This record gives sequence, structure tokens and C-alpha cells, in this order.
Amino acid sequence: MRLALEQAARGLGRTAPNPPVGCVLVREGEVIGRGFHPRAGDSHAEVFALREAGERARGAAAYVTLEPCSHFGRTPPCADALVAAGVARVVVAALDPNPQVAGRGVRRLREAGIEVTVGVGEKEALRQQAGFRSLVTRGRPWVIYKYAMTLDGKVAAPGEGGGGVTSAEARARVMRWRDEQDALAVGVGTVLADDPRLTTRGVPGGRDPRPVIFDRRARTPAAARALRPGAVVVTSPQAQTAPLEGAGAVIVRAGTLPEALRELGALNVSTLLLEGGPTLAGAVLEAGLVDEVRALIAPKLLGAGLSPLGAPVRPMAGAAALRGVHTEPLGPDLLISGLLNDIPRLSAGGEP
Amino acid sequence: MRLALEQAARGLGRTAPNPPVGCVLVREGEVIGRGFHPRAGDSHAEVFALREAGERARGAAAYVTLEPCSHFGRTPPCADALVAAGVARVVVAALDPNPQVAGRGVRRLREAGIEVTVGVGEKEALRQQAGFRSLVTRGRPWVIYKYAMTLDGKVAAPGEGGGGVTSAEARARVMRWRDEQDALAVGVGTVLADDPRLTTRGVPGGRDPRPVIFDRRARTPAAARALRPGAVVVTSPQAQTAPLEGAGAVIVRAGTLPEALRELGALNVSTLLLEGGPTLAGAVLEAGLVDEVRALIAPKLLGAGLSPLGAPVRPMAGAAALRGVHTEPLGPDLLISGLLNDIPRLSAGGEP
Repeated sequence: MRLALEQAARGLGRTAPNPPVGCVLVREGEVIGRGFHPRAGDSHAEVFALREAGERARGAAAYVTLEPCSHFGRTPPCADALVAAGVARVVVAALDPNPQVAGRGVRRLREAGIEVTVGVGEKEALRQQAGFRSLVTRGRPWVIYKYAMTLDGKVAAPGEGGGGVTSAEARARVMRWRDEQDALAVGVGTVLADDPRLTTRGVPGGRDPRPVIFDRRARTPAAARALRPGAVVVTSPQAQTAPLEGAGAVIVRAGTLPEALRELGALNVSTLLLEGGPTLAGAVLEAGLVDEVRALIAPKLLGAGLSPLGAPVRPMAGAAALRGVHTEPLGPDLLISGLLNDIPRLSAGGEP
Repeated sequence: MRLALEQAARGLGRTAPNPPVGCVLVREGEVIGRGFHPRAGDSHAEVFALREAGERARGAAAYVTLEPCSHFGRTPPCADALVAAGVARVVVAALDPNPQVAGRGVRRLREAGIEVTVGVGEKEALRQQAGFRSLVTRGRPWVIYKYAMTLDGKVAAPGEGGGGVTSAEARARVMRWRDEQDALAVGVGTVLADDPRLTTRGVPGGRDPRPVIFDRRARTPAAARALRPGAVVVTSPQAQTAPLEGAGAVIVRAGTLPEALRELGALNVSTLLLEGGPTLAGAVLEAGLVDEVRALIAPKLLGAGLSPLGAPVRPMAGAAALRGVHTEPLGPDLLISGLLNDIPRLSAGGEP
């Protein structure tokens, strides 16, 4: 399953609204087929793996990071393909929360006499599929709030823009995250202050996330560097957006943050990397819409400066506790990550 | 040396102006004597260890965390005692920076034909002796800035006092630190807001640190709970302190922070645990007087609130970087510690 998860990871940020999925076929301890879903509309992971294995797939074991599909979508059902290839055993990391599958894929395999095991490597698979699962069950992207701060909790010095907080190692990790997420969100304040490009830099084979600017009053300059084709500006129903439309921006009008996220979901944004600033991040946290937190901490003290979150206002006892906290050194810095919301596992009644 | 360092640790917070020192005597792989310096005026570690070993010390190896003294202080020189006992070998963790010793202890042992090794376990020994070394070489205490904050850098919610940030495990560690340091400093703002007791709680055999209140205008209420016998109020040369003197406080008058720390050094405060608040901590950091940082981070997001440091104001590139950074989980929380200043190793020309 480790290999299958590695395969799946190659599709991260490229498959929405589909999930990133990996498949590995093993026969007598030897890997005979490998595949991953490269992008929506292309073949599923199982198809690539079966194609590589050919006739040798007969009697083999298939390791797949997500329950094989049982419905006709843009491609025929993968469960049928595995049955037809004569696979003897299927190991599934996680069930598909899509109500069209939701256990039916596993059932179809079992009915064909295939031995099926579910749940191997599920934790990692759920993490990879968080965006897909969020989109299918909640109609909105999985929101990852990322920030970099000093050990005394400052993201910028007074009067300075962001940046310069963490090490090259930490910045490289952020670029990998950008490569892996569908979209990258900032508030208009960040655009006005820093005019960031919001691109992925220094990742071999990397692609840029879709820029999303939260900008209630449509103050984004038409010449903003982030306004490349496909860039989204989330604004209020009343805002004057003609100049932005002229600059090629996709305009999303929403009265509330939940509504804005649903609109982004409708645009096939399954994962949203939220990079600030404090006003936007505070508002998203306040609305309970931050699903995951990735905090980069540089071991240095600044003093006065800008804090990561401008809101909400609540007592210490009401602070939002992270679950599944993970700590990892990145050069001299430290990454602390965890979840505020659970990754959706199954829609109701989906247990096979 | 591990055992000797453990012995020494038993004296932490109890020996100033002397260092915490441990000594273990080993003969044919067997520990035959153990000792530590329990408090100023009492015998040195070597004396206790030699007493336990008796005649068996002849030909033994002595492991001692600090260079044995060579001068007559309140007790006769330990180097002489080791020579007289017929010890064959002495392993020293760190040389004594005291100009009266500074290599002379080692020289005396070597002149008596004893084999001497220096530097085994030095790093840990320097940490234990940071206060003593600071006092001897700089005339001021080693200052440890401790704070507890949320993952978004907040030490308190708006309008709330401190506390409630970290777990029971982290709080227990703070209590151990209080037990180990000579004095505990807060600003008058913390006293006025929280009226803290500044005591050590829940540590078996623990003792309370000496409370030190930084209070330029002598606003500390005479009934403040921290004003137990020995408590120090650091104030300006002009402040009216009659009520505080009436309450038994020791008054230290100082125009600047460096002056204040030298006065505390004169009171035999070798280690000072600085627990805030933001105004005092910011000022001490700004003056370059924070030697060590111990940050406790609770993996939760608060939003708006109080930051650990109110000062200084400087660019991100001027942030004070920690060296020798160490990370340790404490229950659900994380301790990140490191040094801003080096622990003094030797006074000039002290290399033996």
C-alpha cells in the first residue's frame, strides 16, 4: 500500500474533482503493475496498473488507495475491470464516500469471488483524499490554513510585508504544498501590500495552484500579478467587477464565507491552501471553515509585529484545539500540523 | 558522569552563589561514593563522596561536574582533599570560570600525579552551571524567559489574565523550573492583573523561588500574594516604597535593566526565570538580557489576544535567533527551547 500511496501522490493537485488514487498489482511478491489517476477525464489508477501487468494480472493482488468505482462515469467501472482481469485479491485503503460508490465497489468485487480487505493505510489515504472527500460530502473544498511565524507568534514586522520568517527548507515545503493543492487563497490586503505571484517555484514538474483572492469590495488592481488566467476573485454580490473581468478574473459573488466555499467547490476546487493574511484567516477560522492547520515556526523572537489571526475574539477555553498533531523539523524551523475538522470518511449508510 | 550530573541536579536552585556540583567515585566499575553540594556554606560535592567512600577512595576515579576548587573559601580546597584521599584519576565536566580557580584546580591535581580528563559531559554541566557562570563572569543572573502560548502566538485572550493555555504536563514542567531557579520575575502588570503567588506547587521536596517584581513606580499592593519574606521589588531610584518596605519587601533601586540585574546578582540571584508579562519581557529582550528561551506551545488557535512580547520594534531580519534549539513534547503541548546568549565557559586566560 505504501507504493500505491506514492503512486496516488503523483496526482495531488491535478485530479479534481476526482480523487488522487494509486494502484499497485503484486504477484508472488513482485510488483507487476503500477498506476495513478493523472487528471480528471483520464483513465483511473487501476486501468494503468492492469495495462502494465497484462495477462499476469490473473491471480494477482491489487493494492488500491480508494475503493474501485462501481459506476459508469467518464470511464467504465474499475471494479468490473479488476474482475475481468482475474485479480484474486484486492486491498483497499479507504472506502469511497461518493454516494454512487460507497461500498458498492467492494460488494461487486466480493460478489465476483474476490477476497477484499479494507482499511490498510487508511489514515494516509484519507489525508490524500481530503479534498475529494470534502467536495463529495460537503460540496466545498478542504481548507488548509498555512502560516509562518516567529517563536513569539509574529508573521511580519511592523510596516513590513510577509516573508523572511522561515528558512529555505520551510519555503521549499510551502512550494510543494502549493503544487499539491488545487487553489491558493489570500485576502485582498495581502495583494495590495505584497502583490504576490501565488505561483509554485522550484518544484520539478510542479504546477501553479489556482489563485483565489477574497476581496469583498473588489479592490484588487487589474494589474495584480496573481490575476493570471483562471484566477478567482471572491467578492460581494454588489461589487463593481468590470475591471477585474476585463483582466480575465473569474468572479465569484457570495454573501458569506460558506457560500463562497460552495461556489469554489462548484468550480472543482477540492483543496484550498489559505495563506492569509490575518483578516481573512481569522474570518475563515471564526466561521469554522479551517479544516487543517500547518504552522511553520522559526526559532527566533521578533517582538512587536503582526499576529497570524485577526479574529475571532473568544476566551482561552474556547480556543480551537488541533487533533492528530504532527511535528516535523524543516531545516532550523518546525512544522506543527493538525486537523480542526475530521476528514469525511463515508456518507451515511455507506458501510459495506 | 551521568550519575554525577544527576547528583548535581539535586542542588539546582539551592546553592547560589555557589554552583550545583555533583561527584561520583568509582572503583573497579563500582560506585563507592556520591555527593552533591546542597547549599552555600555546606560541604562541597567531593567531600560528601570521599566521606562515603572512606579508605576505598585510594586508587579510585572521581567524576566531578565542575573543576575541583583550589582555594580556601568557606571550605578547604577540594583538589587537596582528592589528592589526600589518594584518588588516581579525576574526570571533570567543565572548568571553573571563577578567576580564583580557572584551571588551578586541575593543575594542582596534575602536579600531584593524578590523571585528569576535562570536558566529559561539558554541555550538560554548563547548562546546570549557567547561573553560577553568569554570576562569576558577568555579575548578573542567567535569565530564562519562559512563556506559554497558543499555536497562533497568544498568551491570553482579550481581557483575560494568563493561564489556561497549556496542559497539566506543561504546567508541571514549569513548576520544576521554578523549583530549580533562584528567582522568578514578573512585571507589576501581571501582579495587578492576576495577583499570582509565584510559588512552586506539586514538586516533591520543592522550594519556592524568590519572587522579583519589576515595578518602576512601586505600584505593587502591600497585600500582593507574591510579597512573602525575601521578595524583591525592583523599582526606580525615586519611587515611594515605604508601604512595600512595611510589607517586608526587599527594595532594589535601579535606573536601567542591566543595573537591576547586577543588583539582583549582588543578592545572590544566579538564575532568574522571567515569566512575563509582555511589557517586561519585551524590555528585557530589547536590552539583550534574555539568555535562554523556553516556549511552551499549545496546539490550538485562539484568534485575537495578547502576544508574548510587547517590544522591541525591529525588522524581521533583526529577529533574535535561538541557538541549540531543542524540541520536546509535553503531553499535548510542545516545548521549544534554545539560547540567545552563550553560557560563559571561562574567564580570560583560564585554559589549564
